[in-house]
Amino acid sequence: MSTAPVSFSPVRGMRDFYPEDMLWRNRVFDAWRSASAAFGFQPYDACVVESLELLQRKSGEEVSEQIYHFEDKSGRRLALRPEMTPTLARMIAARRGSLAFPVKWFTTAQCFRYERMTRGRKREHYQWNMDIVGEQAVTAEVEILAAAAAALQMMGMPDDSYKIHVNNRALLAELLHNTGILPEHHPAVFLALDKRGKINDEEIEELLKAEGLGSEPIRRTFELLEVQTLDQAEALAGQDSPAVRRLRELFTLARLYGIDDRLVFDISVIRGLAYYTDIVFEAFDIGRRFRAIFGGGRYDNLLTTVGGDPTPAVGLGFGDVVIMEILKEMLGDQAASARSGVAVGYMFQEQRDAAMRLARKLRTDGEQVDVMLTHLKPKQFFARASAGTSAEAVFIGPDDVAKGVVRRKNLDTRAETEIRLPIA
Amino acid sequence: MSTAPVSFSPVRGMRDFYPEDMLWRNRVFDAWRSASAAFGFQPYDACVVESLELLQRKSGEEVSEQIYHFEDKSGRRLALRPEMTPTLARMIAARRGSLAFPVKWFTTAQCFRYERMTRGRKREHYQWNMDIVGEQAVTAEVEILAAAAAALQMMGMPDDSYKIHVNNRALLAELLHNTGILPEHHPAVFLALDKRGKINDEEIEELLKAEGLGSEPIRRTFELLEVQTLDQAEALAGQDSPAVRRLRELFTLARLYGIDDRLVFDISVIRGLAYYTDIVFEAFDIGRRFRAIFGGGRYDNLLTTVGGDPTPAVGLGFGDVVIMEILKEMLGDQAASARSGVAVGYMFQEQRDAAMRLARKLRTDGEQVDVMLTHLKPKQFFARASAGTSAEAVFIGPDDVAKGVVRRKNLDTRAETEIRLPIA
Repeated sequence: MSTAPVSFSPVRGMRDFYPEDMLWRNRVFDAWRSASAAFGFQPYDACVVESLELLQRKSGEEVSEQIYHFEDKSGRRLALRPEMTPTLARMIAARRGSLAFPVKWFTTAQCFRYERMTRGRKREHYQWNMDIVGEQAVTAEVEILAAAAAALQMMGMPDDSYKIHVNNRALLAELLHNTGILPEHHPAVFLALDKRGKINDEEIEELLKAEGLGSEPIRRTFELLEVQTLDQAEALAGQDSPAVRRLRELFTLARLYGIDDRLVFDISVIRGLAYYTDIVFEAFDIGRRFRAIFGGGRYDNLLTTVGGDPTPAVGLGFGDVVIMEILKEMLGDQAASARSGVAVGYMFQEQRDAAMRLARKLRTDGEQVDVMLTHLKPKQFFARASAGTSAEAVFIGPDDVAKGVVRRKNLDTRAETEIRLPIA
Repeated sequence: MSTAPVSFSPVRGMRDFYPEDMLWRNRVFDAWRSASAAFGFQPYDACVVESLELLQRKSGEEVSEQIYHFEDKSGRRLALRPEMTPTLARMIAARRGSLAFPVKWFTTAQCFRYERMTRGRKREHYQWNMDIVGEQAVTAEVEILAAAAAALQMMGMPDDSYKIHVNNRALLAELLHNTGILPEHHPAVFLALDKRGKINDEEIEELLKAEGLGSEPIRRTFELLEVQTLDQAEALAGQDSPAVRRLRELFTLARLYGIDDRLVFDISVIRGLAYYTDIVFEAFDIGRRFRAIFGGGRYDNLLTTVGGDPTPAVGLGFGDVVIMEILKEMLGDQAASARSGVAVGYMFQEQRDAAMRLARKLRTDGEQVDVMLTHLKPKQFFARASAGTSAEAVFIGPDDVAKGVVRRKNLDTRAETEIRLPIA
């Protein structure tokens, strides 16, 4: 075995989490889990390794270019999942006879995507997934959006610092139909329009021409994107538009849930993925300086991708990378450095047992205790305690043991209280 | 895209976690995290994908046979980590100039091993790792053992249901030295003795002969394994044996920490891995019907495997598979089915808004609320609530809205209290 140094860096595109990074990560993960619990979602999980066939089934060949895949020794074609939805579909399908629908499930799953790295893009991230499977009513959408809003609140994001942009793909389909664009062209049109902002309008026009659209339908398609309000959309789609009715229902429910101040109708929200069928949404910081915080929508064909029956479903994906960038900028580094627990030190080897006894007592009482593993001079101990994460410190010298009493010091305020040392 | 059914099973050797499985997993993970915090350990994490070179450096070529590995499109040789220690070494080495030693870190990391599956063995598992890096004193060992014992207590394992078997590799080395076996043979002897119980003594004898040991040293080696107590070991090793002194120190500290009832000296504990240098330990259920619950020890050459300076370290690995088997058998399935939260239902569409308003109010108060997404008949609602995980249920009918008051029912005891409905 060579002992020449190896690289100390993580693999390109992958992240290390040192304790100071975990403070941010836990802030995000704890909010995800608490919001899931508050809204009655049940946890599930599965291994990050899936069969390549399952993943290709839903994502299609082009996405599978971006999947890390490999063969095991038996020749099985395996892969690191790029998203959780195929796994969810498989797990639901496996128990579709015994599950009590609608199911409300959540997970915080690591996902991999082998792509070029840009700001905010890594080759792996953790994604909070919430899905409601087996429910047609728009109550499913609003439950998921309200849970996401609750999570952002728990993380410390002010309600006025972001907006949830909402659209309905079925509305776009109705409007395209009215302009004479046949349903078979809709997926390609959605894909082209979704690129707006990333490529210029001339390039989008080229894509639409390539799909076989004439110049008049193309002009009218671009006109649709100028629609600003739900009233305008209704004027175009007609009063009996089911798609508009679902959007209105969503906004009505949002008022009940107290999140209507964060919801905006935005006809440009399309979501690239082919499988959304109805309401779609994306959340952005108010200045739109970052990529989407979360996104999702209704995809009523979940189980058909794995060979099951059509099943109504709404899902949300909320990654950890963008939100951590936003929180760090918005809250500053101090926000993640909250101190907790108590450090316990001792001056000489003779006080070690007293320190260990105190540590044991405090831990039994439910406190977090960082007891020193060797004796330290007071200055060394307090320097170490201050540089660490403990909120308080207790230092035991020979006199303290003799008296049976020791001072407990708040490292921020310097306030001291006296506590009794446990006797042997 | 084909719509023929794909397999609904996870990849062979990998696990799905349905909500009922997550109850057990969270029981274990929550205890790991709480015990880590109580003992002042800081969280860290890294991606499950590592460079194959790093993993081979520590594990050696033979273990790397059991590593899932693959190349990315740039020809990088990547792998799914089989253990966390090389990653820990890399991360510590990267910041060895700025970290305040000793560091106390923990993680709950998924690890992969491509091996034949037997009971309790999967191809992936989660492993709680606790490591103290930069401390020579035996206080490091006892801190880690006490934290592991605290975690088991939190999971519901009675203190008398398991034992932590402790040995010191340096003691074995001293005793082998006394029998005339030179240090260069010790690693092979450790490896052979560690196989005891898995292969028979004749086969071990063959291994020792193959290493070049004569029949007298082999006889005396087997004799060493008959040592039952620390006193017997001391009689053989001599009163000034540093290895015995460290073991005695560990048992003394264990009394202070209140875990001495669970510690036993066991000269047969060797741990296969080559890198342990001093105290080693393994915990087993009292009937020894399961594989080890956790294991670990001191490995003072951590950083040398990645090209750094020798650094004293103690580590523990505690997997999720064996402990979940034991807990399920010991506590029964009911232990993981604790109910919590409240289900809220409504009879007709007209009561939906009242139900949503109540759900919002209860969630704001910190409760976990599973609100129904459509109206249900009372029978359907209570059947669904009882089959779910909620502890209580509130069902809103037209009369309740008129009165502004509704009954809140405990689903176990059937006890009811009246609560006020929030007004619009």
